[in-house]
Amino acid sequence: MTPMFEDAEKDPVLDSAVFELEEEPLRTELVLRQYELLKRADRSILVVVAGIDGAGKGSAVNLLNEWLDPRHVRTLAFGPADEQEAARPAMWRYWYNLPAKGHIGIVFGSWYAPLIAQAARKKPDAEAVDAMAAAITRFESMLAADGVQIVKLWFHLSKEAQQARCDELLSNPDTAWRVSDIDLKVARKFSRLREAGRATITATHTDAAPWVVIPSADARWRIAATAREILKALRHSDVPTLSPAAGPTRGRVKNQFAGLDYSACLDKDEYEKRMLRGMARLGRAVRSRDFGNRSLVLVFEGDDAAGKGGSIRRITRALDARQYGIMSVAAPTDEERARPYLWRFWRQIPALGRIGIFDRSWYGRVLVERVEGLAAPGDWQRAYSEIEDFEAQLVAHGAVVVKFWLSITQQEQLKRFHKREKTPFKAFKITEEDWRNRKKAPQYRQAASEMLLHTNTSAAPWHVVATNDKRLERVTVMETVAQALERALGHDAEED
Amino acid sequence: MTPMFEDAEKDPVLDSAVFELEEEPLRTELVLRQYELLKRADRSILVVVAGIDGAGKGSAVNLLNEWLDPRHVRTLAFGPADEQEAARPAMWRYWYNLPAKGHIGIVFGSWYAPLIAQAARKKPDAEAVDAMAAAITRFESMLAADGVQIVKLWFHLSKEAQQARCDELLSNPDTAWRVSDIDLKVARKFSRLREAGRATITATHTDAAPWVVIPSADARWRIAATAREILKALRHSDVPTLSPAAGPTRGRVKNQFAGLDYSACLDKDEYEKRMLRGMARLGRAVRSRDFGNRSLVLVFEGDDAAGKGGSIRRITRALDARQYGIMSVAAPTDEERARPYLWRFWRQIPALGRIGIFDRSWYGRVLVERVEGLAAPGDWQRAYSEIEDFEAQLVAHGAVVVKFWLSITQQEQLKRFHKREKTPFKAFKITEEDWRNRKKAPQYRQAASEMLLHTNTSAAPWHVVATNDKRLERVTVMETVAQALERALGHDAEED
Repeated sequence: MTPMFEDAEKDPVLDSAVFELEEEPLRTELVLRQYELLKRADRSILVVVAGIDGAGKGSAVNLLNEWLDPRHVRTLAFGPADEQEAARPAMWRYWYNLPAKGHIGIVFGSWYAPLIAQAARKKPDAEAVDAMAAAITRFESMLAADGVQIVKLWFHLSKEAQQARCDELLSNPDTAWRVSDIDLKVARKFSRLREAGRATITATHTDAAPWVVIPSADARWRIAATAREILKALRHSDVPTLSPAAGPTRGRVKNQFAGLDYSACLDKDEYEKRMLRGMARLGRAVRSRDFGNRSLVLVFEGDDAAGKGGSIRRITRALDARQYGIMSVAAPTDEERARPYLWRFWRQIPALGRIGIFDRSWYGRVLVERVEGLAAPGDWQRAYSEIEDFEAQLVAHGAVVVKFWLSITQQEQLKRFHKREKTPFKAFKITEEDWRNRKKAPQYRQAASEMLLHTNTSAAPWHVVATNDKRLERVTVMETVAQALERALGHDAEED
Repeated sequence: MTPMFEDAEKDPVLDSAVFELEEEPLRTELVLRQYELLKRADRSILVVVAGIDGAGKGSAVNLLNEWLDPRHVRTLAFGPADEQEAARPAMWRYWYNLPAKGHIGIVFGSWYAPLIAQAARKKPDAEAVDAMAAAITRFESMLAADGVQIVKLWFHLSKEAQQARCDELLSNPDTAWRVSDIDLKVARKFSRLREAGRATITATHTDAAPWVVIPSADARWRIAATAREILKALRHSDVPTLSPAAGPTRGRVKNQFAGLDYSACLDKDEYEKRMLRGMARLGRAVRSRDFGNRSLVLVFEGDDAAGKGGSIRRITRALDARQYGIMSVAAPTDEERARPYLWRFWRQIPALGRIGIFDRSWYGRVLVERVEGLAAPGDWQRAYSEIEDFEAQLVAHGAVVVKFWLSITQQEQLKRFHKREKTPFKAFKITEEDWRNRKKAPQYRQAASEMLLHTNTSAAPWHVVATNDKRLERVTVMETVAQALERALGHDAEED
């Protein structure tokens, strides 16, 4: 049942004798449970603090820092987006600041701020409210599925109690500074904010991340209720489980590579002419004024030795080194391992006006991690929709997302493996692992087919390229990127 | 000897047959050496790319990414500072982006950009040039001492060769986009930029980080020379060693705590009155418009159980949770361990308008790491001057740095240890380690005395506070912070 405000507006008071009895056991168990949490590599707690202004949210956070061991608590307070944040999708800063597993994060001015602000307008845009609530629900479900337990606290009190609290602070010059202009305004708009709170809670109260209303007029009640909720979350030691992902087809998916023409090729003159023109198109597009409000995300996946590195190098020759970054996906660091799967990619997404090139990517989840059994089936299955959501957020914020699957035939791969082994400065590219992976080619091909089927969205389409001929591959990649960018910028695309 | 431009301006050409002979062994050894580097936890290489525009710096970087395994090369390109960068000291972004040990970083638009720009003015400010060069030299020496080998390449060619290169690009519409307005301007100002380069190289050519001039008119010469320099650095497998730090007195330093009055105390009424007033002063100061151009860095060090946590909590009650962050110094993560010592603190310093509270700090280097033998003597000894430099950069950029050493008597510490052990929700604060440290009190006191002596600068002074009486401690800390901030903001400090 969705929690309501009525009980909180009765402004209940906790007797000081009762509080004193409760304090020591509460504090003791809080600290002990916090230490248990700290040992866990699979769980963190995120406390979302929201509510009516003047309800004592700040004191509640101070209290948690006092009662818990503050070395393992991270308070995250978000104000208006700064330049760096504004240049990335709205959720970026929340991802970026997620606490590590084992830790407790307390979030102020969270992803709820825009939703509450919209809901509190004189005439809220119902569609915007629904869209924001849906985005939040998806985000929180993903975190929950990845071991982040979310505790959402709405601090509440009656209009009269709020006014009394405000008056008391104002009456003393040494406390009056605590009451900001915003607080005074809030008092006048109590009922509208109350309705916004109700709408927010109703739209975002889920099993994965439920809301709790904390009666806040009485400091002791507020403190005890807050501590009890955190304790409840700490006690709940299971990793939250979600219903299995709805998404992927479980049966055998049609081979997505069957129709590719691996024999097509390009002669040298044609290659050089088209390459130079493609580079010029890309070079002009990324240097255009319009690109300042867009970004470019290039994803390179494909068979081993299919030519990812070579294609990426050609692309970068058209770019200014100050404008792009290449992310080669390697083993995650311990800071990355301690956070949800997509964190390390959020961490790396380019700002507006910039280009991010991913040499392998978040698709590893449904490729190597799936095939090698590094991710549990439930985890890689839900990745399809998580990735779709992730890319949709990039695109909604102005990113042009171009994804390449580079494909070669088994024979061509074998030829390239042998050639690499014989070239001293390329031998490093071939390891035992490549030979092992080659033996699993059918499984990889099956995983790739399924991935293409599930994540080929109109917002972020896949381009499957046959790369037996390197010249044709590189020209195709260059022209595809140039064209995608020109279209997005509304420039007249040149003929290909 | 400082490298000069004369040879490079002869625009030497490398015969293609010679190049072909050299290419394979160069590439092979580069890759093999890169793999050796990768295994090392104590070394990284930073390649600084500078030089005359149009000399092919971009192609040289592309080449390195092609010849090395690009997964372990990180290209760092800096343009004008963004909002986040501008809100922190100038060196912050270079620190923040340092590659991990084992890796190679290539830096474009580096810390040399402002120096070169200044030196290239019609009338360069000689003092500014000297100051910038000195700051760069200190920075690079610190990196070198911490295992970062710096290779500085100046790409150079004659004025005629530059013009010819430009003309060739402009003659084809598919390459003309490569020539920016800046390049055209640069061509007209060749001799001034040449002089700026000479001044820069002369002022910053050190043993720890020498410059090399790469003749760049001929692509093959440029490529081979660049690869040879990187290879030379990779071959040089020793960790760079510096002459021992000049700084600290090696003899016994006078006990800095001898004159403290541990018996002073404050009654409850006086405490509450002064505390409320102090909080109000601090609350107003950090909310003032002027504070938007300043930041506040609070450092808390001191004896175990001396009251750091309690003092920090009182301070935060005067602050808006959106404005401050508390950094509790814990064991470094693997990303932190892979970088120079100060990196994890640079990572955390507050932007303008914000407050960073450090519960223990960079002083751990000369306290716990010294006493417990976790840092080699040479490392903690040079930390004194490194820290002074670090804090000076914070202050120069507008930070108010207030450092507290909280001191209690041995008897009072024992009392607090026992009390903590008996209070269930405080028992977590006392560990075996605290008892072990207590036995080493004389060594810790000696290290602290020496630290106070060496790092008590006028820019960032220490405040040594006797904290046997908690009330007096908290009021003193609050008032000291409020006063330091009021003074820095030019507000009339209220009487204490």
